[in-house]
Amino acid sequence: MHCTVDKLTDFATQALIKTGMSEKNARLSAIHLAHTDAAGIHSHGLKNLRGYIHKMQLGAMNPRGEAEVLREKGALALLDAHDALGTVGTTAAMDKAIALGKEHGLALVTVKNSSHFGAPFLFPARAAEAGLIALLLTNTDPNTGVPDGRGRVIGNNPLCYALPWQGHHPVVLDISLSATAAMKIIRASTRGEKLTGNVLYDLNGHYTDDPAWFFKGGALAPVGAHKGYGLSVLFEALTSVLSGGTPGFLVKSWLLALDTPNAITHTVITIDPTALIGESAYAALDAYFEHILATPAAEGSQGVHLPGQRAFAKYDAALAHGLEMPEDVISELQALASELALTFEAC
Amino acid sequence: MHCTVDKLTDFATQALIKTGMSEKNARLSAIHLAHTDAAGIHSHGLKNLRGYIHKMQLGAMNPRGEAEVLREKGALALLDAHDALGTVGTTAAMDKAIALGKEHGLALVTVKNSSHFGAPFLFPARAAEAGLIALLLTNTDPNTGVPDGRGRVIGNNPLCYALPWQGHHPVVLDISLSATAAMKIIRASTRGEKLTGNVLYDLNGHYTDDPAWFFKGGALAPVGAHKGYGLSVLFEALTSVLSGGTPGFLVKSWLLALDTPNAITHTVITIDPTALIGESAYAALDAYFEHILATPAAEGSQGVHLPGQRAFAKYDAALAHGLEMPEDVISELQALASELALTFEAC
Repeated sequence: MHCTVDKLTDFATQALIKTGMSEKNARLSAIHLAHTDAAGIHSHGLKNLRGYIHKMQLGAMNPRGEAEVLREKGALALLDAHDALGTVGTTAAMDKAIALGKEHGLALVTVKNSSHFGAPFLFPARAAEAGLIALLLTNTDPNTGVPDGRGRVIGNNPLCYALPWQGHHPVVLDISLSATAAMKIIRASTRGEKLTGNVLYDLNGHYTDDPAWFFKGGALAPVGAHKGYGLSVLFEALTSVLSGGTPGFLVKSWLLALDTPNAITHTVITIDPTALIGESAYAALDAYFEHILATPAAEGSQGVHLPGQRAFAKYDAALAHGLEMPEDVISELQALASELALTFEAC
Repeated sequence: MHCTVDKLTDFATQALIKTGMSEKNARLSAIHLAHTDAAGIHSHGLKNLRGYIHKMQLGAMNPRGEAEVLREKGALALLDAHDALGTVGTTAAMDKAIALGKEHGLALVTVKNSSHFGAPFLFPARAAEAGLIALLLTNTDPNTGVPDGRGRVIGNNPLCYALPWQGHHPVVLDISLSATAAMKIIRASTRGEKLTGNVLYDLNGHYTDDPAWFFKGGALAPVGAHKGYGLSVLFEALTSVLSGGTPGFLVKSWLLALDTPNAITHTVITIDPTALIGESAYAALDAYFEHILATPAAEGSQGVHLPGQRAFAKYDAALAHGLEMPEDVISELQALASELALTFEAC
């Protein structure tokens, strides 16, 4: 169904306001989710709005939650998001990290008691548009195994970064540390397909190509085995440990435990690339990006893209011309409209 | 051949002094290399000493090079290593990052015009022993391909981190961003084995299981495809871009281009885990590590280890009782002794 981003945003804003959120937080959250769909990331956009609102209705997410600065020390800050939707605490953390990064050249802001925010890329992209390099880390519920072990032990703790690129959208990478997404394993199962590569552990701690193990408690495999495992440990240290937040191994899935606060931690690091060498840093980034884009295309491929480049092309097109929304997302939004006695007319 | 770490260190110190290095820099470099062998990482220890010294003799590495602080701004600093052996600039960068991290809670120090330093783990481990979380990034010569492209485009830019662990050696991860090491591909070729997994691109930019492509210009594959690619881009931005150093795509292999300065860039980031929540951060790290170590062993495995745990067990044993050195390393050291008119009696 063809929809406009503005109308999707307006609907989501109304739905969040009706659930008790302030107009300001409702609008920034709605923009974040609708713009995630605009970038083609439908799994993490408005599809989740109904779940977020159900979680608020169950008292496990606080529609009136605001991020509070608990501690500030030089270029570091600690925030408590008080169980607000993840967009609220992460926006506040990014605002603070942009200000501190501009002032000090380097900043770290961590926010505990936060919740799922959908896709992260728009948060660090905003810092990159302000001229900063930005990283956003999050811990997650335990969904991933560790080499030589069995069970779900660590999170697939995602990382998103953005780098300024003059005259372009930022270069943005958004990855988790599992070899593949749970969603892709579920899809393989639905289609009766085997898994390729080392992406899932069975209950004995061995790699399996049978997606059915996922539903019996099998663990996602970390990307690159010990590499993804080790990065997950680092990101846990930089999120829950630095903030004093809930360790990942005590976090519950925001969706599968809808009546339990998500209580995840995000950490933002910003770096001013001009801090040490001045404005020439931007030209150095441009030159590096151009070097990569000059790579000859692999046989049979469309050629090389920088991280995030394809998503931003979709994003620009969707903001200009609207976008085709998947039916399952539309169904969720229609059901939500009915539950909240709103009219859904975005499409 | 059974050797003692102290005698290996003494020999390497003498060899470096004889090549023109100050006693201080010779000793810290020798300790670094011998202790790398102690941890069982023979590919990155004293095996390379002869190559480093040849590079000095060719004028492409400066035995008298010292790290110079070019710029300091709050918690950030920029150093120039003036083509010294990588141990010199990295030690200086880590010293500075430890001091700034203790003072500010967060620090970033980048050092350009540096060279290969062997294995990185001892540098951040020192910061972790001082109570800090530490990351060490390095750019490399282009040895890795990018998805949908062909050729060697990016570096496999390694990351090493260390986390404090009370009553234990730090938790240390040392990884590169290629799916596997070039050395393992060369070994597969020597043994006539096929490669497993997506670890090498052929000249068309397709994955290949034939290690022979490596010798015809095939590129290492990034770990997790777009994941490793994207992380390499980030680490390049945090090394050569922040420092104004040589971009990875202009860097030459320290060993294959022995008469050319290596000119790589390292960046150290330190974070004081107590900055925001006090000493309880160390207990939170301990609890997280204990959670991981409590993981049931996979069927047929020896059970889970934390990153670096096995290497430090070897390290402790080698420092206490000496170690068995591989014959190829001993041959290199004996040849070096002969070239420098020194006696090799470490074993």
